Amino acid sequence: MRYDIAIIGTGPAGISAAINTKLRNKNIIVFGSQKVSTKVSKAPKVNDYLGLPGLDGISLKNQFIEHIKTLNIEVTEEKVSNVYAMGDYFALIADNKPYEATTVILATGVEFTNPLKGEKEFYGKGVGYCIACDAPLFEELNVAVIGHNKKAEHEIKFISDLAQNLYYIPMYDEEVNLDKKIQIIKDKPIEIQGDGLVNKLILKNTELEVDGVFIVKDSVSPERLVPGIEIKDGHIKVDQNMSTSIEGCFAAGDIVGKPYQYIKGAGEGAIAAYSVIEFLNK
Amino acid sequence: MRYDIAIIGTGPAGISAAINTKLRNKNIIVFGSQKVSTKVSKAPKVNDYLGLPGLDGISLKNQFIEHIKTLNIEVTEEKVSNVYAMGDYFALIADNKPYEATTVILATGVEFTNPLKGEKEFYGKGVGYCIACDAPLFEELNVAVIGHNKKAEHEIKFISDLAQNLYYIPMYDEEVNLDKKIQIIKDKPIEIQGDGLVNKLILKNTELEVDGVFIVKDSVSPERLVPGIEIKDGHIKVDQNMSTSIEGCFAAGDIVGKPYQYIKGAGEGAIAAYSVIEFLNK
Repeated sequence: MRYDIAIIGTGPAGISAAINTKLRNKNIIVFGSQKVSTKVSKAPKVNDYLGLPGLDGISLKNQFIEHIKTLNIEVTEEKVSNVYAMGDYFALIADNKPYEATTVILATGVEFTNPLKGEKEFYGKGVGYCIACDAPLFEELNVAVIGHNKKAEHEIKFISDLAQNLYYIPMYDEEVNLDKKIQIIKDKPIEIQGDGLVNKLILKNTELEVDGVFIVKDSVSPERLVPGIEIKDGHIKVDQNMSTSIEGCFAAGDIVGKPYQYIKGAGEGAIAAYSVIEFLNK
Repeated sequence: MRYDIAIIGTGPAGISAAINTKLRNKNIIVFGSQKVSTKVSKAPKVNDYLGLPGLDGISLKNQFIEHIKTLNIEVTEEKVSNVYAMGDYFALIADNKPYEATTVILATGVEFTNPLKGEKEFYGKGVGYCIACDAPLFEELNVAVIGHNKKAEHEIKFISDLAQNLYYIPMYDEEVNLDKKIQIIKDKPIEIQGDGLVNKLILKNTELEVDGVFIVKDSVSPERLVPGIEIKDGHIKVDQNMSTSIEGCFAAGDIVGKPYQYIKGAGEGAIAAYSVIEFLNK
């Protein structure tokens, strides 16, 4: 099955794009969280979203959820790790399953977590982001997984039977439920060290001798998500229609630039929706 | 007194810009209607404004008005006819009164009324848009005023003592209250004719021998409002930051391009606000 549009991300930009394409009867798939946006939920008070003054983040998030429910928009809670431009369609990999869509709207937001010291240097040399993809490389080796969300506990299973010693460092407050053979370390990662290849993860109170460090974040950086996409000043480059450098691939929200505001994302999601529909009509 | 920002227009783009600049304690003046947007009010149902599903236009408009009231934003009900770039500030003319602002955000929307046949051809040759500016040219001559809104009844006073025969063609349904010497003609204008200069206004059921035709619309076209501003495909040309070709002058909403959607306008208003603040901080 090939969808008309795959929307990646359920912040204001992604759900505004979903609403605007669904209202035009497009066959869409939306990847993200049924709770829509963590960032919205955490906002203490939002005063700048026109029409909804003075709401706290949770109330605003609930308004958004209410809106997608009225339109029967479903959210697929799978994490898209790769988007490949295949010419006249896109192949997506989400939780290791393949999907196809004629067009893509990227709305995965921006990470506010800075990379760890050494993270960029050792990317591909022991540092990885996709456990399912790279697990086989670490058979019988020692591996640390830094999990920024509960989903990381699911992903770590791809390596739990392969690694020798497996450490899990949760970066969230919720309870961790993992197989006992995985050692849970509640500490703050500081630096990844190595000598050509990773050999150590330094934490605030301890050090781990490891050959690999996986970092499971809420979103994948755009250049890793969509190989070859043009980046400008750290954001996906788009024109006024929210078109990226790849034909049929559009982007909206924080991922395309500042200001990082909900109303801006919602507006750009609507523009991207409009542009995608024009593109599909051609 | 010089304002930090003059915002022209009170559709979603203008009021979103007002909210976002007021929240950052800027000294703003907002020109438009206290009823915010006529276009919003007339919408039967709006389903694509994220967070406010299924409202009719009047309810949505009321949400907008509520929002600006909570922030004590006042709307100046005067019509801006000219914006002049003076170098390090802008001079604005509104209802014949001068204002000064360091920056300008244009959010006047788009006209959906097509020009009359002959309107463009005879602009400056008998056709005018600013009665107060051009009235003296028509002393002792015959003049027709086509009014697209109630405000035209105020503007026509600038010429009522000067013209010989004065005709008023209201393009709205509300009751007209004018001095008895002005002849009210309820008919549909079709064409402006002339021979070098205007000499006739053709209506559906009659013809008027006139030397001048004033057309009073809700908004002034951008190129007449801001002389020298760059236009692209019938809209004000902006970059991703909503900057126009004139330094310190920004634009947002329908005036910068399609899709003509409230949420898009609101998002762009927030971007313009952000860019203006960055500009003012320099």
